Amino acid sequence: MARVHTGESVLARTVRIVESFRSDDSLLTVSEIARRSGLHISTTSRLIDELVGCGWLEREDRKVRIGVRLWEVASRASPTLGLREAAMPFMEDLHAVVGQHTQLGVLEGDEVLFIERLTAPGAVVNYTRIAGRMPLHVSSSGLILLAHGPSELQERILGEPLKVFTDKTIRTPRQLRGVLADVRRHGYILCAGHLYPDTTGVAVPVRDGTGKVIAALSVVVPNDEKAYAQIPALQAAAKGITRVMTTASK
Amino acid sequence: MARVHTGESVLARTVRIVESFRSDDSLLTVSEIARRSGLHISTTSRLIDELVGCGWLEREDRKVRIGVRLWEVASRASPTLGLREAAMPFMEDLHAVVGQHTQLGVLEGDEVLFIERLTAPGAVVNYTRIAGRMPLHVSSSGLILLAHGPSELQERILGEPLKVFTDKTIRTPRQLRGVLADVRRHGYILCAGHLYPDTTGVAVPVRDGTGKVIAALSVVVPNDEKAYAQIPALQAAAKGITRVMTTASK
Repeated sequence: MARVHTGESVLARTVRIVESFRSDDSLLTVSEIARRSGLHISTTSRLIDELVGCGWLEREDRKVRIGVRLWEVASRASPTLGLREAAMPFMEDLHAVVGQHTQLGVLEGDEVLFIERLTAPGAVVNYTRIAGRMPLHVSSSGLILLAHGPSELQERILGEPLKVFTDKTIRTPRQLRGVLADVRRHGYILCAGHLYPDTTGVAVPVRDGTGKVIAALSVVVPNDEKAYAQIPALQAAAKGITRVMTTASK
Repeated sequence: MARVHTGESVLARTVRIVESFRSDDSLLTVSEIARRSGLHISTTSRLIDELVGCGWLEREDRKVRIGVRLWEVASRASPTLGLREAAMPFMEDLHAVVGQHTQLGVLEGDEVLFIERLTAPGAVVNYTRIAGRMPLHVSSSGLILLAHGPSELQERILGEPLKVFTDKTIRTPRQLRGVLADVRRHGYILCAGHLYPDTTGVAVPVRDGTGKVIAALSVVVPNDEKAYAQIPALQAAAKGITRVMTTASK
């Protein structure tokens, strides 16, 4: 039998071990993994041994990290690879022109998940990273995805407390409802200082061939009057991505 | 107890299911997964249900694919993320100048694994893709990594039959030994038509702060006399990556 006495399966425990790795610390000790996953140290140690054996985790000195093999398996058949490959040439051009962070986000649960980010030394401060997440109400990409997302999701986010980052962060359901309506009407959003006082996020929707919004394309630029000027370039890039994806799937 | 009657653990079976996804087909039926993983259909079906439950696999119609959640977990703490983030600005510049495929590969087992690739519509034919692999003796990146790799690996590859792709492919141990010596002497390689008659791979080593070769940076260009001209740009980009990685780790 595959289940252990607590009723949790080996597979569920394995998932908990692998998911104890976060982006801020890629090397963990066995006891840190045990603590984060809430599993007994001996169970943790045995499952880590097995995961190392199949290359999904790797040892470095006395610590453990995600193995290249797991990255490879997850990436080669990733559901986001087609979107990323279609988007990348347009993101590169945009990044070359704007000279600031350029990123592509998708809706994942109640957050925006960034599947790609181009950045350059000297660019403005930016909290996102590849495979990083952000609350929907605070990120320009998140607001695009929420505005075009399922109405149940909108109601849920509108019903929860909205985490405040700066004095410009959207903080009331009424404000958020207004912003979502604006996003649908205008086809873009500008978030000046919502997350960090000195930066503005500018985002537009990316649609598939049927018109459905599948991602948000955004740049993070200095918080000044030039931010508006990025909108046409973003919109043109988003149209290009749709065109490439539509052609590729035919 | 976690082991089933064949002696293979639940974890090993889970790994086999997830690894049955390849880059050429991202959507599989349960019976295809069972066939590829060599597991009984009922075991396969039960483990897939569990993997879908935790978001590591997703269902689409009657098929199954790798879940965004698995990609996220594997990517956010990926051992290659630091290298990739250091390399990306230089790869973008190179890609903008060369206008052809620009890629970053690491040694993984007996093959080169491509962890990043920038490409553009209209570029020359290219077999690689992100998280794709290539035999070491046939790829310019692979030859760089093999030339600086462990001597046991070199001896093993030299002792095995070398797969032939074109009439230019390296096919004898003597040829390969000569090429590896040249790579170490010159610090670059040009593979004209080794993999495909009309293209040339040009690659250089990327070193860490201690001088150890950790990756290969390459471009795939048309097979003509201009290919040589890419070498200085590739070498300068590789030096830039080393500099950024050395600064970041201080």
